[in-house]
Amino acid sequence: MSAFDHPITLPSFAQVQQAAARIALYAVRTPVLRSAALNALSGADLYFKCENLQRGGAFKFRGACNAVWSMEDEQAAQGVVTHSSGNHGNALALAAATRGIPAHVIVPEGAVRTKVQAIERAGAILHRCAATQAAREAKAEEVRLATGADLVHPYADARVMAGQGTAVLELLEQAEGLDAVIAPVGGGGLMAGTAIAAHGVSPTLMVHGAEPMGADDAARSLAAGQRVGPFVPDTICDGLRTLIGEPNFAALRMHRVEVTTVSDEEVIAAMKLLWNELKLVVESSSATVLAAVLKRPERFHGQRVGLILTGGNVDIDALPW
Amino acid sequence: MSAFDHPITLPSFAQVQQAAARIALYAVRTPVLRSAALNALSGADLYFKCENLQRGGAFKFRGACNAVWSMEDEQAAQGVVTHSSGNHGNALALAAATRGIPAHVIVPEGAVRTKVQAIERAGAILHRCAATQAAREAKAEEVRLATGADLVHPYADARVMAGQGTAVLELLEQAEGLDAVIAPVGGGGLMAGTAIAAHGVSPTLMVHGAEPMGADDAARSLAAGQRVGPFVPDTICDGLRTLIGEPNFAALRMHRVEVTTVSDEEVIAAMKLLWNELKLVVESSSATVLAAVLKRPERFHGQRVGLILTGGNVDIDALPW
Repeated sequence: MSAFDHPITLPSFAQVQQAAARIALYAVRTPVLRSAALNALSGADLYFKCENLQRGGAFKFRGACNAVWSMEDEQAAQGVVTHSSGNHGNALALAAATRGIPAHVIVPEGAVRTKVQAIERAGAILHRCAATQAAREAKAEEVRLATGADLVHPYADARVMAGQGTAVLELLEQAEGLDAVIAPVGGGGLMAGTAIAAHGVSPTLMVHGAEPMGADDAARSLAAGQRVGPFVPDTICDGLRTLIGEPNFAALRMHRVEVTTVSDEEVIAAMKLLWNELKLVVESSSATVLAAVLKRPERFHGQRVGLILTGGNVDIDALPW
Repeated sequence: MSAFDHPITLPSFAQVQQAAARIALYAVRTPVLRSAALNALSGADLYFKCENLQRGGAFKFRGACNAVWSMEDEQAAQGVVTHSSGNHGNALALAAATRGIPAHVIVPEGAVRTKVQAIERAGAILHRCAATQAAREAKAEEVRLATGADLVHPYADARVMAGQGTAVLELLEQAEGLDAVIAPVGGGGLMAGTAIAAHGVSPTLMVHGAEPMGADDAARSLAAGQRVGPFVPDTICDGLRTLIGEPNFAALRMHRVEVTTVSDEEVIAAMKLLWNELKLVVESSSATVLAAVLKRPERFHGQRVGLILTGGNVDIDALPW
């Protein structure tokens, strides 16, 4: 994938603000929770932005909703399409339903049945294909050409990044005087939106990312000064196994995002802490942010830190401990 | 237990308002969540007050905190004592810690180890005794006489009832125009506080209770016009196995609280729905309110209903399905 194929388009801070206004009617203004016990444990003052309590159980609804409501009526009527059958596919289906337009979701063989059922319940039209990335992209392109639906990429789309940035925009209103914010890094849609929004509000805010060691391409790419190539992920954080997108990587560099990597064991310990102390069941991907803060007490000591808990779509009968 | 032993003292609406001001610094203003799917399923407009996200994982912190901060300095210095080793014991320990006073908690043999550990972590002084109600009360009295600590009853104490009433006070601010509210009924501390607070704000509001069929003494007492005697509870709702208190029963009658009973199967189904649709893991006792609303669609149809989700202290590795 070259820069020519994907010209780098990032949303402006103003576009994040517009996204916030656009999705306000549909998205949940998720609560911010605190825990004296976790503050004591970390030596910092922690503010947890609960996107696990977002519509569809993940922040992804924000970006999808912004994309859906950014479209002109005529284009919107032809619908939207994505080849993600995870949280983004579900979010796009829910968002399309708020506008009453068709959502086409490409579902590869072997996709998790409960996730596919949820997407179908949300009203999406499913299109089956083989389990390879190539087959998924080909199927999405086929649907796009046949229907005129607009492709909404899960993280490299500027409308999606702008929507994801609205979470931290709210957080900065809900928790005043933050010194730093931290979000997980997968494809980088949330991370890019977070950096753009956070620095739009306060250019001196520290913006951190958290990444599992078994999918640490963003950390390695930042260290190398350029995106590293494809890799084989080895982590329980299923939401973060993606290679960071090109515009997303550009946003991370531009905003000097510092990425901390954490082990799966550290992630699982953080998941348990979030349940015991905050009564929140979050995805392993979400727990990376607390794991990162606990791993580097010297970095966060005495700071007011906002942490984005990205989602709660876990199989509660198969928790990883 | 005669009326003479326990003169009926109920808090006034003004005392609920004072409690709200008193605990504001310490208690979480818990979020109110909604779900389009649960609205569709119930035919009503539901507003869930998330006391499972309260400090200590349950609404109990409100009443305990109000009791602790209602005391004069001299009395407070001698501490508080309770014979409840469940959520109330934990809440009292946490509340006492906010004022830096001793909390004595009576722990019967066979009490759930994780709950006892949490109470100890919160800083309480534990006193062991035999597992009978008589032994617990005797031990509490012994500690009270030895230390001068003030006994804080888990539900029959007017300060506790006033504190519990602050949850619905917040809910009525957070969700405007409610037609009805519903809370679980055990000892009746929350139910009494809820009725007093709700009717203080709006005398025409319908106030409902939810009770498991296997501990339906409040429903039977209301039907009989007087408190029925002790019974052997048979329900998974461990927080609601208590006989309703005398002042609590008086408050329910006075406020014409309508109690709906639900089966354990209905409770478990409601717990699952709360996880699937709202990503909340709540105690079985909490799920009674949703079960009751779903059981009587004709009663709640088209109404704006506030539901108090009372707590989230469950063993997540042993969910009841």
